Amino acid sequence: MDHLLFGAAYYDEYMPFDRIETDMQMMKKANMNVIRIAESTWSTLEPQDGVFDFTHLDRMLDAAEKYDMHVIIGTPTYAIPSWLAKKSDTILAVTKDGPSLYGHRQNMDITDPTYLKYAERIIRTLMEHIKDRSCIIGYQLDNETKHYGTAGKHAQELFVSYLKEQFSDLSAFNLEFGLDYWSNRVNDWSDFPDIRGTINGSLAAEYEKFSRKLVTDFLTWQSDLVREYKKEDQFITQNFDFEWHDYSYGLQPDVNQFEAAKCMDIAGCDIYHPSQDDLTGAEINFCGSIARGLKKSNYLILETEAQGNLEWLPYPGQLRMQAYSHLSCGADSVMYWHWHSIHNSLESYWKGVLSHDFSENPTYLEACRLGAEMKTYGSHLLHLKKTNRAAILVSNEALTGLLMFPFKGRENSSYNDAARWLADSLYRLNIEFDILNPADTDFSGYDLLVVPALYAAEESVLSRMNDYVRNGGHLIVSTRSGFSNEHLKIYPDMQPHGLTDCCGMHYSQFTAPKNVALKGNGALSGITGTARNWIELVTPDTAETLLSYDHPYWGAYSAVTCNHYGKGLACYIGCFFEDGTLDALVAFFAKEAGLSLPAFRFPLILHEGTNENGKKIRYFFNYSGREASFTYDAPDGISLLEEKPVAQGSQITLAPWGFKIIEQQA
Amino acid sequence: MDHLLFGAAYYDEYMPFDRIETDMQMMKKANMNVIRIAESTWSTLEPQDGVFDFTHLDRMLDAAEKYDMHVIIGTPTYAIPSWLAKKSDTILAVTKDGPSLYGHRQNMDITDPTYLKYAERIIRTLMEHIKDRSCIIGYQLDNETKHYGTAGKHAQELFVSYLKEQFSDLSAFNLEFGLDYWSNRVNDWSDFPDIRGTINGSLAAEYEKFSRKLVTDFLTWQSDLVREYKKEDQFITQNFDFEWHDYSYGLQPDVNQFEAAKCMDIAGCDIYHPSQDDLTGAEINFCGSIARGLKKSNYLILETEAQGNLEWLPYPGQLRMQAYSHLSCGADSVMYWHWHSIHNSLESYWKGVLSHDFSENPTYLEACRLGAEMKTYGSHLLHLKKTNRAAILVSNEALTGLLMFPFKGRENSSYNDAARWLADSLYRLNIEFDILNPADTDFSGYDLLVVPALYAAEESVLSRMNDYVRNGGHLIVSTRSGFSNEHLKIYPDMQPHGLTDCCGMHYSQFTAPKNVALKGNGALSGITGTARNWIELVTPDTAETLLSYDHPYWGAYSAVTCNHYGKGLACYIGCFFEDGTLDALVAFFAKEAGLSLPAFRFPLILHEGTNENGKKIRYFFNYSGREASFTYDAPDGISLLEEKPVAQGSQITLAPWGFKIIEQQA
Amino acid sequence: MDHLLFGAAYYDEYMPFDRIETDMQMMKKANMNVIRIAESTWSTLEPQDGVFDFTHLDRMLDAAEKYDMHVIIGTPTYAIPSWLAKKSDTILAVTKDGPSLYGHRQNMDITDPTYLKYAERIIRTLMEHIKDRSCIIGYQLDNETKHYGTAGKHAQELFVSYLKEQFSDLSAFNLEFGLDYWSNRVNDWSDFPDIRGTINGSLAAEYEKFSRKLVTDFLTWQSDLVREYKKEDQFITQNFDFEWHDYSYGLQPDVNQFEAAKCMDIAGCDIYHPSQDDLTGAEINFCGSIARGLKKSNYLILETEAQGNLEWLPYPGQLRMQAYSHLSCGADSVMYWHWHSIHNSLESYWKGVLSHDFSENPTYLEACRLGAEMKTYGSHLLHLKKTNRAAILVSNEALTGLLMFPFKGRENSSYNDAARWLADSLYRLNIEFDILNPADTDFSGYDLLVVPALYAAEESVLSRMNDYVRNGGHLIVSTRSGFSNEHLKIYPDMQPHGLTDCCGMHYSQFTAPKNVALKGNGALSGITGTARNWIELVTPDTAETLLSYDHPYWGAYSAVTCNHYGKGLACYIGCFFEDGTLDALVAFFAKEAGLSLPAFRFPLILHEGTNENGKKIRYFFNYSGREASFTYDAPDGISLLEEKPVAQGSQITLAPWGFKIIEQQA
Repeated sequence: MDHLLFGAAYYDEYMPFDRIETDMQMMKKANMNVIRIAESTWSTLEPQDGVFDFTHLDRMLDAAEKYDMHVIIGTPTYAIPSWLAKKSDTILAVTKDGPSLYGHRQNMDITDPTYLKYAERIIRTLMEHIKDRSCIIGYQLDNETKHYGTAGKHAQELFVSYLKEQFSDLSAFNLEFGLDYWSNRVNDWSDFPDIRGTINGSLAAEYEKFSRKLVTDFLTWQSDLVREYKKEDQFITQNFDFEWHDYSYGLQPDVNQFEAAKCMDIAGCDIYHPSQDDLTGAEINFCGSIARGLKKSNYLILETEAQGNLEWLPYPGQLRMQAYSHLSCGADSVMYWHWHSIHNSLESYWKGVLSHDFSENPTYLEACRLGAEMKTYGSHLLHLKKTNRAAILVSNEALTGLLMFPFKGRENSSYNDAARWLADSLYRLNIEFDILNPADTDFSGYDLLVVPALYAAEESVLSRMNDYVRNGGHLIVSTRSGFSNEHLKIYPDMQPHGLTDCCGMHYSQFTAPKNVALKGNGALSGITGTARNWIELVTPDTAETLLSYDHPYWGAYSAVTCNHYGKGLACYIGCFFEDGTLDALVAFFAKEAGLSLPAFRFPLILHEGTNENGKKIRYFFNYSGREASFTYDAPDGISLLEEKPVAQGSQITLAPWGFKIIEQQA
Repeated sequence: MDHLLFGAAYYDEYMPFDRIETDMQMMKKANMNVIRIAESTWSTLEPQDGVFDFTHLDRMLDAAEKYDMHVIIGTPTYAIPSWLAKKSDTILAVTKDGPSLYGHRQNMDITDPTYLKYAERIIRTLMEHIKDRSCIIGYQLDNETKHYGTAGKHAQELFVSYLKEQFSDLSAFNLEFGLDYWSNRVNDWSDFPDIRGTINGSLAAEYEKFSRKLVTDFLTWQSDLVREYKKEDQFITQNFDFEWHDYSYGLQPDVNQFEAAKCMDIAGCDIYHPSQDDLTGAEINFCGSIARGLKKSNYLILETEAQGNLEWLPYPGQLRMQAYSHLSCGADSVMYWHWHSIHNSLESYWKGVLSHDFSENPTYLEACRLGAEMKTYGSHLLHLKKTNRAAILVSNEALTGLLMFPFKGRENSSYNDAARWLADSLYRLNIEFDILNPADTDFSGYDLLVVPALYAAEESVLSRMNDYVRNGGHLIVSTRSGFSNEHLKIYPDMQPHGLTDCCGMHYSQFTAPKNVALKGNGALSGITGTARNWIELVTPDTAETLLSYDHPYWGAYSAVTCNHYGKGLACYIGCFFEDGTLDALVAFFAKEAGLSLPAFRFPLILHEGTNENGKKIRYFFNYSGREASFTYDAPDGISLLEEKPVAQGSQITLAPWGFKIIEQQA
Repeated sequence: MDHLLFGAAYYDEYMPFDRIETDMQMMKKANMNVIRIAESTWSTLEPQDGVFDFTHLDRMLDAAEKYDMHVIIGTPTYAIPSWLAKKSDTILAVTKDGPSLYGHRQNMDITDPTYLKYAERIIRTLMEHIKDRSCIIGYQLDNETKHYGTAGKHAQELFVSYLKEQFSDLSAFNLEFGLDYWSNRVNDWSDFPDIRGTINGSLAAEYEKFSRKLVTDFLTWQSDLVREYKKEDQFITQNFDFEWHDYSYGLQPDVNQFEAAKCMDIAGCDIYHPSQDDLTGAEINFCGSIARGLKKSNYLILETEAQGNLEWLPYPGQLRMQAYSHLSCGADSVMYWHWHSIHNSLESYWKGVLSHDFSENPTYLEACRLGAEMKTYGSHLLHLKKTNRAAILVSNEALTGLLMFPFKGRENSSYNDAARWLADSLYRLNIEFDILNPADTDFSGYDLLVVPALYAAEESVLSRMNDYVRNGGHLIVSTRSGFSNEHLKIYPDMQPHGLTDCCGMHYSQFTAPKNVALKGNGALSGITGTARNWIELVTPDTAETLLSYDHPYWGAYSAVTCNHYGKGLACYIGCFFEDGTLDALVAFFAKEAGLSLPAFRFPLILHEGTNENGKKIRYFFNYSGREASFTYDAPDGISLLEEKPVAQGSQITLAPWGFKIIEQQA
């Protein structure tokens, strides 16, 4: 792909009347160049068992070719037709809440043989029908695929087989999972109980891990099918989504996206986020960084909001700001869900570029301006490469572990709260970061490694963190890291297991804080704060205390420590506290790691990278409703959209929700 | 009926010991003249299949005849005997929550053939037994009949037939309901899925409408049965109830009462409402106006609170005030639920006129005073006719639509919140109103028509509203009106669909307000407010702006507009705001409509009408704990209960929770 | 037992590696002398049907004997093995929520014949295997046994039989339970519906009572089995637990512990409570007093927190304070749940004496100090006998009644809230009390009897209260007492039924207060307060008003009255109000009852009793983070732990969370 993709999901199927010519013309006027189609339309593609109807698809492909638009085709398997639901009792997923009813998307059992048989047929038939169309640039496998909590017969049988493969010795299995507790011991695989009733966190977490593997297996199977048909220059992707808190929030609990992405050519995702006064760019940055980490390359934004949900209608200027925010993180596309708002069913108030009236509206008009800019300047912005000096290690296993044993007061999203707490501090301080995962074996490329709440980890990961510090790395690791192994079995020795050496501290007790203040020491002298959610009663061994508890009984313990170990430095954070206090800590530590931070902070955000011409691109954003100024201290450049030179040392003022993109000249 | 009815529900069946003589004497002492019996007593009437026992009923009828009391007989079908529940697997309703268990009333499937067979037999046997009793003045069909969420086999089959009748063409059906979305298309009626799983708002809303029709059909069937036996001078009624928010709140979602009332002779209902410091009369007024609208005539209060629920124990004087409030709205009866408090089971703390001790208590003693007054002055108050110049149009379809797609922050009762918001403003300003429904074809009798949130409406209704204004009417229409058609398919053109001409404005975007102030213009200059829940970004075309948004980005748009159209005037309200701001708007508009409002407002409330002697009756209420005064500026009259003349222009002071009823002399 | 028991639950089964020797040595170092084992380990004892494995058990018994530790053996029946769950469809309890899944403990149907058959075999096999071991001092039947909401086939059949036994006459049954209401009448026992659907509070309450009887029957059956094997000097106990509100709160709803304890030799229980700044001792006192009341003797603390839950980690000093708090209430043991923290499954964060790292930690070190003290001074503290002059009457039936018909705003624990409200006032005022239950026939031993919210009571209990006052007793009885009979049938006469004579007042109306202040009269002149949750509109007959409502309409009524009756005095409390106001009332009344209260109040708490040597032991606790002083005005004594004399009249200062134990010398 030699240009940025700009477009929207388009559903000819959902139209109340024929709009295809008008819509294509409106898209072209907006300089859109891609539509994403066919995902979730199985019932129109195959209205009855074995009866196929490609009318809508052909219309869209014809129109795309006529108007010179690219097309991304989604396989339609994430929403099944009504007739298919009646083929077998086991197609609709049986979950913790019992059998699913037909109606919703994503309600099928992705391990069900009947479902898989029909899914294969529709994919093959579809691919056969379209494989020669020139407008198709790529394929999206399914959509936002997850395991949907399947715990039906087939899935549970597969789980027992999966356990048997891991544990030939039942006694070892019982010991590792602690099944003697509450008489849960399994002494014969045929006694294995319905997993839905388990109260064993280790077993429940293993089922979650297994379920994530089902997603990887399913997507790999689809990828193999599509790959049989697709042309060399067409890509395979997925529309990954993120943990959802009314918007995209963090690491996806139900998919190991790092594993699942292996069968794909390019990572794709959707990112939805607050807007208006709540637009911060933090979700675009964090989720975008995950997406960039999946293939360690640029990625596609396959869906993001145009008008979006009720609260998201962008202020004038924000639609453009949001698009450039994505590009500044390494996205090579901005695609809206969706072109037009839908007139029936569930998501009628998740609005597209057009409202239900199909007329030009302020959002559309801003998209037109954006499209023109992307067309003119896109070649400067495409394939932005980042060479970040900081990285954050995230872990699905730790996420699941903290779902089982959450922080007090953060029961719903302990892990992502912990991860976002640290990641957003880096974001506010203008430290760009890459995302690593436990399968990454080399951290040595980074000056700063941040490991939030790595609750569950194999020995090898912990030992790699230790090595990283010994060899000169700078590590920030936060509360409850190193607590349990990969099966959520708590390590039966000094905490934090495997990290006491590099961190130079230990603890064996923790509690929930009530009125526990924090007091800075040494480099953080004068800094104060309030402990939240969870406090570990840390005893420094070789470490220096950066923050200690200001409390009649816990005052003897440290909250945050810093330890020289080998050639490196390790910071252990044993509790939560205010963002401002954290920013002071992270800024101090980043400087120790040799990172040079800009003089400004959030709401002024700087993102940078190198374009294909080897030129440095710098995005400056003002995520606030107030004008903001800063000194441009990079080498002389050109402000791209204005085509105006910017001299080093000049003072730049950004309007409310304003931004500048400056290409360095030297 | 030539006199007001005053009485209570009476259950000889529930008595811990024989009280019938004492109770009748106590009722007579209170000048009560009617009891309502037999509803919900199937298990005593038919203790075993085909074994009938009329002991309790005969005792009550005998006593009623001895003490010259009227009787209203309820058919006992809304609570089934334990033996009947065992007759078939499908008698107890299967709902979204699965099969119902026996115990509760209103848990049966009203489409179940077995239930209907036994219901017919008990009705016929009962009617045969009592049809010659002279004390019976009327029959109540079932009680608070609804559909109970039935989604069993029979109901779902009926639903598919009902759809087939409407849509001979499956493609048209799929298009109208937007079933292509998420692959929900139905290409063969035999594929029709379990409606309980649907995520299609249009389909779900249609099932709600269908379910309301089940209620109409059921009541019509019962009415036909009862009519075979009843005497000419006996009436048929129903005890309709209202959307329940710990008290009667607004339009009933589960019944189209306008349709269902067609098979009845007189409308009946129950109204429960807050009391003590929270007594405002607003529920009595709004729900009473609905009841009055059902047959466009006077109605029966078949149930209201005596002591009622814990919070409702009336302050001294309030029991009388409440009764007169009902009469002032056009009720011809005040009947309590219930005579005595119940000693077992669920509603023991929903107290009657008597406490569990059966002794005289302050509530009973106040009922005695009330009964004496009603006897003495009832002929002046009976059959009060109203000739209101204002009307409010309410719609079950719009209610369901907003249940599917609610206002932000008003998820539980979007529609009735919107309706009450406007209706209560009229109430506070002393504008009495009638209630219309979408089946009403002529609005021309009214100077002011208020249409709250008419989210779902056929073209014809919208066009009637347009015509109304063109022909000189004054219309207030509020946010989200004209958004979707009768199948909840959003109109694919300029919003508000069908109303842009008369309202002289349009919008295509909306959002949830955060810190969005309102600023008055023109006639509302100086008025301020804060937008709530939902704001439409209205652009006036020919309209004048009355309120605009005071906001850096939405300031370009209007919140409330006013437009001269034809001979009339239309006010469009594009958001919610404070009551005080609304009162200013409504007062302005009502004056434009030529209504003359009293100089006083809530808590001083004036209700008026004309009695059978052609005399004007005016009720003045002080709904507050503070004394209040006003100038009586109607022609000279008589204060009825005091039998004192009141001269025009005299100053009247009402005690806390006090009232006066003045009959105009001229 | 001639010494205090000090120890912990110990699970060799749950160990990640062999720790038994080390653990025994650490326990001995802490002067622990008892372990509690085997409860909940069925799946290790009988890994497959009929295959028994006593390895873990034998190891623990061998070690105990080697280290001279006592052992309490729990029968393992409260958690079933996975293989057993598959033996029958009816082993796992069917409850209101449907069938249970395997995984959780306490999920079986304790009436299921298959379960009982296998339970008997494991108990017999276990007893046979261990009965000669010398270290075993006693047996615990099952653990925290309850009925688990069982409403399966067997349980429901038993319920109908149980009703038939009580009611040979179906009409009498229908009348007593008020089943005519909503057509719930049962005219043939074969019509009896699934109890899970009932809306009849009387019937639901009777099922609760019946379910409590199932627990008594089950424990009695187990006791009989164990008694066949156990030696004369071994005791049988149970680990009773209490109504749970994140901690032990009050009377257990699901067990009639007074009945169930009859088959045991000594009462045992677990008490968990808030700690850190929230440690008040109130739960230890209230629940401990219930435990002491079960056999009217000393009791065992079989479980309490060491580190416990996250919020409970004790401040330095609190572990000892907590232990002595238990002893001061009459406990003869302090046993922790559990020795070590568990590395897998559900309760990993319910921490034991040791953390997961098994190392010495502050909690363990404090346990060592405590163990040494208990060893040295235990003989002075053992078998503490109390001769309290006050008693509180608690009732399972009243608890259930208020679960059905709760106080407004206290829906979840109306009864225990009401009981704790009064009991905690006595506690704060340093009035120690015994706990009585409705089966106690003699109240005459007490100068002060407090009866909270006795909502449901047989005539005989009410008449005993009346007699108590007449004969000179001082009774405090609170709102809603005497309202309904033992079947939750509301008494159909003047309220409070059966108490109007002794209390000299009556009421027939009540409501929820809004802004209702309280005003003291007579002895309480000057006292003020605010009414909460529920107010009865009390009319004094012969009584004097102590508190009246300060309100424009309810001002005519009394809130609290006091009445001389016979030789006694009765105080009726008709509402709830602030603790401070209550303390003033209770202090006044206690003095009327002739009790002499210490000059100090909470947070300074005095508990006392007589030890086996006939010496008076007084515990003085300071439940606060601030130093506190008081005058020791008892006869000269010895401060035990310090071995220092304390002279009468000397001033004693207690450190924050400090205490003293003084043995009187004379």
